[in-house]
Amino acid sequence: MSPSSMLAIAGAVAIVAGLCWACAPPQAPSAASPIYGVTLPKGYRDWTLVAPAQEAPPLDELRAVVGNRKALDAYRAGTRPFPDGTVLVKLAWKHTPSPDFPPASIPGAATTVQVMVKDSRRYASTGGWGFGRFVDGKPVDKAQHETCFACHAGRVADRDYIFTRYAP
Amino acid sequence: MSPSSMLAIAGAVAIVAGLCWACAPPQAPSAASPIYGVTLPKGYRDWTLVAPAQEAPPLDELRAVVGNRKALDAYRAGTRPFPDGTVLVKLAWKHTPSPDFPPASIPGAATTVQVMVKDSRRYASTGGWGFGRFVDGKPVDKAQHETCFACHAGRVADRDYIFTRYAP
Repeated sequence: MSPSSMLAIAGAVAIVAGLCWACAPPQAPSAASPIYGVTLPKGYRDWTLVAPAQEAPPLDELRAVVGNRKALDAYRAGTRPFPDGTVLVKLAWKHTPSPDFPPASIPGAATTVQVMVKDSRRYASTGGWGFGRFVDGKPVDKAQHETCFACHAGRVADRDYIFTRYAP
Repeated sequence: MSPSSMLAIAGAVAIVAGLCWACAPPQAPSAASPIYGVTLPKGYRDWTLVAPAQEAPPLDELRAVVGNRKALDAYRAGTRPFPDGTVLVKLAWKHTPSPDFPPASIPGAATTVQVMVKDSRRYASTGGWGFGRFVDGKPVDKAQHETCFACHAGRVADRDYIFTRYAP
């Protein structure tokens, strides 16, 4: 190989490395949740915000729900039930005082990432939704996953089992 | 015009209307902020979340900072100062108890939208940042804009004047 083609290859590698370095952090495929087989969706940390929320102590968290394109289109158009392929991800962090600005509190350590996937056939017995709850990228146990649908069904069955409203 | 071409045009209009209807809400160009000439950036409501925050009473707000691609790339790579073209937008809503789930509080009415734009030449006298603060899509007065940089410079000059840290 000529020095000039080696240089060209090295340049191309540097460009690709630069591009990847600028992308979202790499994300290995996650293990699937018990019961539902839901995994952490690829690239979710780049998705659009649906709304933030705060959860009081003892959990004491700041949270944000993000959604894929189908989710956002359905939220904005008022489409209910959400179409198959809708995916919502709730990120959560400990709620921590800001060291820079006393009236504010900000995200501390990340706690859980929770996923809801709409597939009206696969999840027909749970309102069309599959659930996944992850800590450090790993799904929590079956017992925790057994509580998901009952809570959503008991409180927001009339909104296609979704708590979070779009914050304009 | 033949009925079939009218039908074709009507169909095309319906398709385009359908596409737009599925997009982010239409957003008219905003007026520019005093001092800085910053406008609400197009499409910001689809941008990626940097982090949520809470602001204590009397403001009593839930907030979320989103950023454009340059902002997110710089956050994730640790690039400081942020490059020219970085844009950050802070959305804010009143902090309201959830009617569905008592431990949670959620966004109520939208309050302000605040924008920071990095342009190291244009805004050389304010750390490279231009500021815009908007209520109902309109910039607030000059007096309010005169307070922006002093607060950022007084508290987070060592972090390129940016309070918000990326929440992973």
